[in-house]
Amino acid sequence: MTEHYLDASETQPYWDADIEPRLVVQPGDTVVMECAEPCGQVNSDWDAERITQLDFSKIHALTGSIYVDGAEPGDALAIEILNLEHHGWGWTGHIPNFGLLAEEFDHGFIHHWRLEGERCHLGEAGVVLPYEPFPGCLGVAPRPEEGRLNTIPPRQNGGNIDCRDATIGSTVWLPVNVPGALFAGGDCHGNQGQGEVCGTAIEAPMTMTVRLGLVKAANLPEMRLQRLAPRVNRYERGSYITSAHGPDLFENAKNAVRYMIDHLGREYGLKPSLAYCLCSTAVDLKIAEIVDAPNWLVTASLPLAIFGN
Amino acid sequence: MTEHYLDASETQPYWDADIEPRLVVQPGDTVVMECAEPCGQVNSDWDAERITQLDFSKIHALTGSIYVDGAEPGDALAIEILNLEHHGWGWTGHIPNFGLLAEEFDHGFIHHWRLEGERCHLGEAGVVLPYEPFPGCLGVAPRPEEGRLNTIPPRQNGGNIDCRDATIGSTVWLPVNVPGALFAGGDCHGNQGQGEVCGTAIEAPMTMTVRLGLVKAANLPEMRLQRLAPRVNRYERGSYITSAHGPDLFENAKNAVRYMIDHLGREYGLKPSLAYCLCSTAVDLKIAEIVDAPNWLVTASLPLAIFGN
Repeated sequence: MTEHYLDASETQPYWDADIEPRLVVQPGDTVVMECAEPCGQVNSDWDAERITQLDFSKIHALTGSIYVDGAEPGDALAIEILNLEHHGWGWTGHIPNFGLLAEEFDHGFIHHWRLEGERCHLGEAGVVLPYEPFPGCLGVAPRPEEGRLNTIPPRQNGGNIDCRDATIGSTVWLPVNVPGALFAGGDCHGNQGQGEVCGTAIEAPMTMTVRLGLVKAANLPEMRLQRLAPRVNRYERGSYITSAHGPDLFENAKNAVRYMIDHLGREYGLKPSLAYCLCSTAVDLKIAEIVDAPNWLVTASLPLAIFGN
Repeated sequence: MTEHYLDASETQPYWDADIEPRLVVQPGDTVVMECAEPCGQVNSDWDAERITQLDFSKIHALTGSIYVDGAEPGDALAIEILNLEHHGWGWTGHIPNFGLLAEEFDHGFIHHWRLEGERCHLGEAGVVLPYEPFPGCLGVAPRPEEGRLNTIPPRQNGGNIDCRDATIGSTVWLPVNVPGALFAGGDCHGNQGQGEVCGTAIEAPMTMTVRLGLVKAANLPEMRLQRLAPRVNRYERGSYITSAHGPDLFENAKNAVRYMIDHLGREYGLKPSLAYCLCSTAVDLKIAEIVDAPNWLVTASLPLAIFGN
């Protein structure tokens, strides 16, 4: 079992079965991957004006690809997340035409977080989120006939899964499409609510350590994962929960978030853009029920332990 | 502050602004409500054949209505859930043409649970769920112009919210539509996953104690709630999570549940109908991301602590 190191001198803002791998490893090997700031460009000086001029061709600035010897189509690539180290800083923002509430948040906004040890400091309203990091993107090469794909949506090959459960201690399984799997990852988040509603989490450069393994002939249809118990109990002081009913889960989610933004303004004095960003980084969208036709219920859960720190 | 008692000799399978209240209380009063088996008919002798002959006119067998003195349209009714006592038994099942996967589960099925103290015993595969009870239905009268409504979907007046967060210690706020609010509740569940995917939870008769209060002129658009920290940590042994991506959250939810049913069969030997029921009672549907267009990701999370008891 060898430990490899892969720097972020070259990043991969696409998925492609024909990509030349930067590293070849054996199943069971460990790789320390430097992961760039997720957009490959934002830094702690950026302001609201600058964020509207994002260069999308650099997104996501992933590290890879890694060829896993012996991986074949039909196998599952097992990615154990062993560690994620932040570099002290992260950002959350919203950009025009992106995010769940793009109609009302049609301008640019950016907020910078200070990451210190196990805490993410918002710097307003006494808000501190626990550091619960994960890579937003974990993927393998798509099927050869799919050509070169951008990295925005999650697909059968994984990619931008933005699943907060893929944290330290978790194992993520992805279906292998091509020999060697051609794994890449990055887009690291210091924390994120289920939903990532404003379109960004606590976006941060990190050093990620993974162990790569294979499950032969697993024939997985899509990504699945196993996580350990959460290291921190975000719900130790309970939660405040908004809900929205209706026949469309997407519209319900929008309304539940709108109600939460309104609540964060009234109770904690947060302005709408920052409240929206806090929803994206701390509030979990859940489907309370999906069977009481014709109305389904979506809830947005705010952990109260993040306040008064 | 008076404590009242309301039996289940008369049940209310509808919502109607013109209903005659069974009880008048003052804000701050407590009511001990006997809540019938949610369908008002099922008992521990029922089998798969009998469940297909459910009489829908009796559903849900709610207890109420309760007139809260001083409640006016625009106020919020605050319902504090003080206690929920089970009577030792509950059931989960699926019935034709109902539930998230009604296409493939097109026949009747029922499974009986033994509830004992804080534990819900499945009686197969060593599965024990923690007792995390809540009333599936909590509602007030709808607006007078809406007439008499059935109790199946949740609406602006609450009703069949099926939200597992409305548990002991939680406070639920509902918008008041008519003088006195006309509160009713019931449809108690011993536990339920977020989603209630097969259409039923651990359906059980219970004795529920609530305190009813008012927030004047709250002008809530929809139900919201606050819950204390969970009394039990369902995730103390981590979780196994399936995921499904695509442009439709509803289809994604179906696929994530299908993958979980498959997993429960392979790993724990559960037959499809019982696995589907276990998804409905123990597996949480969450929206991992809802912004990475065009594909959203829904996950289904199975707490591993329920096995091997």
